[in-house]
Amino acid sequence: MNKKAWEGVFRMPEPGRSAKPRSNGLTMLLDKGLGPRATEDLMATAADYVDFLKFSFGTSAFYDEEVLREKVEIVTGAGVDIYPGGTFLEVTVCQGCYPDYLRRAKELGFTAIEVSDGTMEMTDESRGDCIKRALDAGFKVLTEVGKKSPDEKIAVAEMHRLIAYDLELGAIQVIIEAREAGKGVGVFDKSGAVNESEVDQIVAGVADLDKLMWEAPIKNQQQYLILRFGNNVNLGNVPTTDTLALEALRQGLRGDTLKRALERGM
Amino acid sequence: MNKKAWEGVFRMPEPGRSAKPRSNGLTMLLDKGLGPRATEDLMATAADYVDFLKFSFGTSAFYDEEVLREKVEIVTGAGVDIYPGGTFLEVTVCQGCYPDYLRRAKELGFTAIEVSDGTMEMTDESRGDCIKRALDAGFKVLTEVGKKSPDEKIAVAEMHRLIAYDLELGAIQVIIEAREAGKGVGVFDKSGAVNESEVDQIVAGVADLDKLMWEAPIKNQQQYLILRFGNNVNLGNVPTTDTLALEALRQGLRGDTLKRALERGM
Amino acid sequence: MNKKAWEGVFRMPEPGRSAKPRSNGLTMLLDKGLGPRATEDLMATAADYVDFLKFSFGTSAFYDEEVLREKVEIVTGAGVDIYPGGTFLEVTVCQGCYPDYLRRAKELGFTAIEVSDGTMEMTDESRGDCIKRALDAGFKVLTEVGKKSPDEKIAVAEMHRLIAYDLELGAIQVIIEAREAGKGVGVFDKSGAVNESEVDQIVAGVADLDKLMWEAPIKNQQQYLILRFGNNVNLGNVPTTDTLALEALRQGLRGDTLKRALERGM
Repeated sequence: MNKKAWEGVFRMPEPGRSAKPRSNGLTMLLDKGLGPRATEDLMATAADYVDFLKFSFGTSAFYDEEVLREKVEIVTGAGVDIYPGGTFLEVTVCQGCYPDYLRRAKELGFTAIEVSDGTMEMTDESRGDCIKRALDAGFKVLTEVGKKSPDEKIAVAEMHRLIAYDLELGAIQVIIEAREAGKGVGVFDKSGAVNESEVDQIVAGVADLDKLMWEAPIKNQQQYLILRFGNNVNLGNVPTTDTLALEALRQGLRGDTLKRALERGM
Repeated sequence: MNKKAWEGVFRMPEPGRSAKPRSNGLTMLLDKGLGPRATEDLMATAADYVDFLKFSFGTSAFYDEEVLREKVEIVTGAGVDIYPGGTFLEVTVCQGCYPDYLRRAKELGFTAIEVSDGTMEMTDESRGDCIKRALDAGFKVLTEVGKKSPDEKIAVAEMHRLIAYDLELGAIQVIIEAREAGKGVGVFDKSGAVNESEVDQIVAGVADLDKLMWEAPIKNQQQYLILRFGNNVNLGNVPTTDTLALEALRQGLRGDTLKRALERGM
Repeated sequence: MNKKAWEGVFRMPEPGRSAKPRSNGLTMLLDKGLGPRATEDLMATAADYVDFLKFSFGTSAFYDEEVLREKVEIVTGAGVDIYPGGTFLEVTVCQGCYPDYLRRAKELGFTAIEVSDGTMEMTDESRGDCIKRALDAGFKVLTEVGKKSPDEKIAVAEMHRLIAYDLELGAIQVIIEAREAGKGVGVFDKSGAVNESEVDQIVAGVADLDKLMWEAPIKNQQQYLILRFGNNVNLGNVPTTDTLALEALRQGLRGDTLKRALERGM
């Protein structure tokens, strides 16, 4: 890390925040279409606090090749992993062009791949094949469990089985689906509030919580997860505009977590 | 269109998307004050998917002349039409300076004009005069029907009459008002949900649906209109940050429309 | 002010807007992490309409020193005051390093300081000491009254006492707390609606309303305050993306305030 602006002046109220390269306390941002200059801005202000940048849905398909390459280079050059969203992978799997997808992703400079089945059905065999091929091609692999539709719900036992399966195959993180909106999906209700008993059920069957990444686009969700699991909980689908606000929440520089630090006698 | 990043790797799940210059499938963005660099970013990432950029309300009045000219040039240079919002036109009509407004808009490089009466009352004669003068001055003319206030509602028969009137005079698109927020106005209820019967009533009296543009700032509204009218429905007041997300929705690269494509056997 | 794009073409529907340097009609923006290019964009489009830029929470702590310095220079070079948020000050007061904080803030180029006790408890003596030291160091001082937690509420009499106390000591503005979200805090209810009787009670005990700045992040709040107190009411915690939209609201170039101007016979 470069010298921070206030270095030496004060102590972070919530200490123990992991530094890069980190294996927990990961932050994955959801990129809805930042241009090259905005991407440079993001990296200049926040690269130390961002581990993964994910293109939302299939948005990477709409970029001119040269613009995408420029963007990917800005991100990877700042030490941040970058990948096309899981929805895009699902399309290529359905169309039988997953190997082409991996080859092209490599050419374009992507460093990670997300394997998900949020919209489609996928057999264990197909899922495992996706993970293995991506690993073989040199990508970091994140997988996702959970369905995008509020009408489909995956049983918690099945979720536990998939998490273990993916990690066994070499996924570095398993993501709990919450979409971009974080409402009415996964562990969040229609208003975005956390369903604590669903969180309880999920964590009850996971050996290593550092391998779970929670999609948590909304502040109250991030706050709940940080207060419950500590400031090094892995969080995903964070809006790019909230990167520093989330870091303030993690490190006790925002009212909600500062309050606890004060009560503890910071 | 330049070469896209994933060209040749996969097929769009929802085919048939119109290409520029297009006469349907138009997207109009609502610009709340992008600076020159952000405007360049937007054009670099999304110019192929944007047809009109509208300055929200009267915001163009607050720009320094040179900054506005720079912005207008970036946009028009990328093949996108640009215009000051309808509210601004209403002010100039009220103040009797509409001809000056058109002359100045031309000097500043604007390429389109929106004629609306969302806040004020306007006679047919005045409305027609606005349209004709703008056309004579070489602008593309979009008009708008509907009131901004939830207390004033325009009868559907009157709406049909105005739509026919405007198109007859040469408007290229008639916009259905929904404001920036998309809530409690036009065909959207207080929560932003679509009032389907109001949509039914409007379309029942319009001969060519390709001439209607729906202001639809919120995703569920865009999704409804795309699923109902196809991926080449005309949509307006789209937030600039959602440009690629909307395109993903149109072309089936987002869960909500991908699901339908999958069911169809993409 | 430089020459505006539409100068000479029309009159602002709501006249009398104060110009910089202004002592009322102040706008304070909440900056959640703009990078250098976005900061330049903001200053290029809106410097005439922005008086203060506040770093949200403790986010300034996460910047590399050189990036922060660049950002501060862009802002102050455009004639806008800039300061770290009040939460950050509370941390340094708690840790006993407030003098170091002021010294470093000066070195980094900040021009203002906010003294608040939104999260912690602060005695009058400590509050007064903070204000005086910041003034002595050459900063403009804004103070804040109100608590961040919905469970703690400050009595209106105490609020009046603090406002008088802070102004007496030399604060140029006293801010009424509403956080970033503007919901369930201060004069706003859970949905963000204005509690008018609470506004009544506050203003009843304040001699000079030009010394009050209302945190009002949401449009309906800004609109209420402008319609009630005039277009030169002081507003804070405005999202950077809404700067020009707010100015349109102040000057009658947006439906909501234009309507009133029309009724008056603009």
